[in-house]
Amino acid sequence: MIPNAFLNDLFKAAVAAADPARCVPPHLPEPPKGRTIVVGAGKAAAAMAKAVEDNWSGPLEGLVVTRYGHGAPCRHIEAVEASHPVPDSAGREASDRILKMVGGLTADDLVLCLISGGGSALLAAPAPGLTLEDKRGVTARLLRSGATISEINCVRKHLSAIKGGRLAMACAPARVVTLAISDVPGDDLSAIASGPTVADPTSFADALAVLAAYRIEEPRDVLAHLKAAAEETPKPGDPRLARVETKLIATPQDSLEAAARVAREAGVTPVILGDSIEGEARDIALMHAGIARQVARHGQPTPAPAVLLSGGETTVTVRGEGRGGRNAEFLLALTADLAGAPRIHALACDTDGIDGTEDNAGALAGPDTLARAEALGLDARASLTNNDGYGFFSKLGDLIITGPTRTNVNDFRAILIAGDPKP
Amino acid sequence: MIPNAFLNDLFKAAVAAADPARCVPPHLPEPPKGRTIVVGAGKAAAAMAKAVEDNWSGPLEGLVVTRYGHGAPCRHIEAVEASHPVPDSAGREASDRILKMVGGLTADDLVLCLISGGGSALLAAPAPGLTLEDKRGVTARLLRSGATISEINCVRKHLSAIKGGRLAMACAPARVVTLAISDVPGDDLSAIASGPTVADPTSFADALAVLAAYRIEEPRDVLAHLKAAAEETPKPGDPRLARVETKLIATPQDSLEAAARVAREAGVTPVILGDSIEGEARDIALMHAGIARQVARHGQPTPAPAVLLSGGETTVTVRGEGRGGRNAEFLLALTADLAGAPRIHALACDTDGIDGTEDNAGALAGPDTLARAEALGLDARASLTNNDGYGFFSKLGDLIITGPTRTNVNDFRAILIAGDPKP
Repeated sequence: MIPNAFLNDLFKAAVAAADPARCVPPHLPEPPKGRTIVVGAGKAAAAMAKAVEDNWSGPLEGLVVTRYGHGAPCRHIEAVEASHPVPDSAGREASDRILKMVGGLTADDLVLCLISGGGSALLAAPAPGLTLEDKRGVTARLLRSGATISEINCVRKHLSAIKGGRLAMACAPARVVTLAISDVPGDDLSAIASGPTVADPTSFADALAVLAAYRIEEPRDVLAHLKAAAEETPKPGDPRLARVETKLIATPQDSLEAAARVAREAGVTPVILGDSIEGEARDIALMHAGIARQVARHGQPTPAPAVLLSGGETTVTVRGEGRGGRNAEFLLALTADLAGAPRIHALACDTDGIDGTEDNAGALAGPDTLARAEALGLDARASLTNNDGYGFFSKLGDLIITGPTRTNVNDFRAILIAGDPKP
Repeated sequence: MIPNAFLNDLFKAAVAAADPARCVPPHLPEPPKGRTIVVGAGKAAAAMAKAVEDNWSGPLEGLVVTRYGHGAPCRHIEAVEASHPVPDSAGREASDRILKMVGGLTADDLVLCLISGGGSALLAAPAPGLTLEDKRGVTARLLRSGATISEINCVRKHLSAIKGGRLAMACAPARVVTLAISDVPGDDLSAIASGPTVADPTSFADALAVLAAYRIEEPRDVLAHLKAAAEETPKPGDPRLARVETKLIATPQDSLEAAARVAREAGVTPVILGDSIEGEARDIALMHAGIARQVARHGQPTPAPAVLLSGGETTVTVRGEGRGGRNAEFLLALTADLAGAPRIHALACDTDGIDGTEDNAGALAGPDTLARAEALGLDARASLTNNDGYGFFSKLGDLIITGPTRTNVNDFRAILIAGDPKP
């Protein structure tokens, strides 16, 4: 077995399991008596729209919004590209057009809503009276405050004309079928793209409590809007959502399982550690390294050959001036800690094909990485201090570059502990 | 099964596996023709000395140094208490007396050297011409510099009259049998208590290179001593260490295995994740929480009922004003992240019985911890921000208080994912 080829096969299997061309068709409903409108947002939105077109019998129209560079060639559905993670006017205009498009439908019509990670920033429709600038201002303050992602989403849903179930309300009385690709812990439907067709258990009062807890008193317009509490998001059980059906068509866990099957076929025992691992990338790397050593040294939790698989989303506290996303940082910390340990090879990639804001999906590392780096005058610990995972693996020629995969089930990590060649 | 009682049983089994009364006797050598001198240092040193006394036939004499509060009643061997982790004059005097005691022995004599974690600070014997203050000064600078523990130990061994194999050299021509209880990753014998009887592969030049790499130019006496390079530590293969034999009598892994046996007997599948997990406590907690959720949600890496077991040593970057060691911090972060997840119970303790500088070994947490805390007006995230794990679990009455256990195989964590009562 060639370790890098094996790890690459696992990553490809993980991405393939979430490929819209593969996971959309089995979940398509019967065409309706009336019109079919396709809307959606997220890094997979254009590819999902294309998968609908390729497998639909009957007329179709609609508009989806995806990230710049994540488009796909559609014939009947317009696929707009917009900015992520910071929303721009392209996303704003697309969102407004989506809301108009689903207005005035009848009970005979069907809205197909295609949702995936990244949709929250792409569906940028401020509530009436608010500006994109207002929303950006409060989001930036919340991100710095230490608020949790669910607290941030609670506020966002109450500043939006489209999130937190409001898109579904706009579709009534048409039937709504939402197909969702999950990139969130626990596959919480109300969290993927801030749940535009999903009931929202939180209230204006909750949103105000979040701002109070983190002592956020600006922008003024935002606070005034929340206090006015004009139109609440639909709550679970709301009859206006009675004709909405949501199907989870791909998840991080599905992708880990797909990689696990490939490993098993190659005679390597897969150990799925978790589909939603969070935490600082370099510390999460130390723990992965610790488990890898346990496999190598003690045959626990399973004997080698084994591959540790995990998903989720790590974070990077940037202190240096280097380049690179969380997967390169993870892999760099892992490499430094394993210090050339024999027979341990690793891959860390973002399944959307873009690690942070660079052009790589992630990178590969193995027992010889440190020695090869040293020969080039590269110091792993110094690179890590400088948050320069991209620079480190780029100089080694060990980046994985796929381009946008047009799907997103968050991070994918695989650590192979190969068997002893002659035990 | 009562989860807290079960977790406590695992912890007790882990500590019992490293109890000197249990693990010293099987490794005692035959009494020698000549004298038997017992020396040693570490948190387990007094208990190890007592275990020798209780199982030795023939005359005995000696001196061991342990941490304040970790003493044990010995009859023939003097057990001195001294300061840890910052060395004091009690440790310094004891170290000097140990060196004198092993001087002038013959080939018929035996030195039993009892080594355990903490011994490095307790064996405080600066090399001739240096003061304790010099050593403290450079150690403090190194700790702040980001140097690795092996880099720090390289410097320390070259500033010491006793570390890095120098104690063994002082014992020659007597036979030396070292019994060691490991608290270090990989059970590296040269790292436990800075290996007073173990060959040291590093040199004065290496020590100077470490100081240069971290731009440490003080204290002057320390640099002068390293540059003078008067007497090198013994290297692997040094004939002066030919009569030294070292036995690892207890390890973190042994303790995890002991806990795993207790779990298995109770019908709970043990998953040993690693005996040497390192990293920031709160992030390592997030990863443990992620794996626990994977067991609960997907039955991976094994179905519930299961218990995740891990050892090693996490770190805490102190930013708040609260109290508590790394185990309380770990458990607090775990509790906040699991957010009351049903059927998940956890214990985190230091096997030496002292978590940081408090009076507790660690604490317990379960699904009702957050709700009980809330009822007392305690906020887990706020307590975590304040590094106040001790305050949090103390107010809940959930501390585990054992007092010093007189052994040390580092941290012990157990996370039980109980089975579904009615599947």
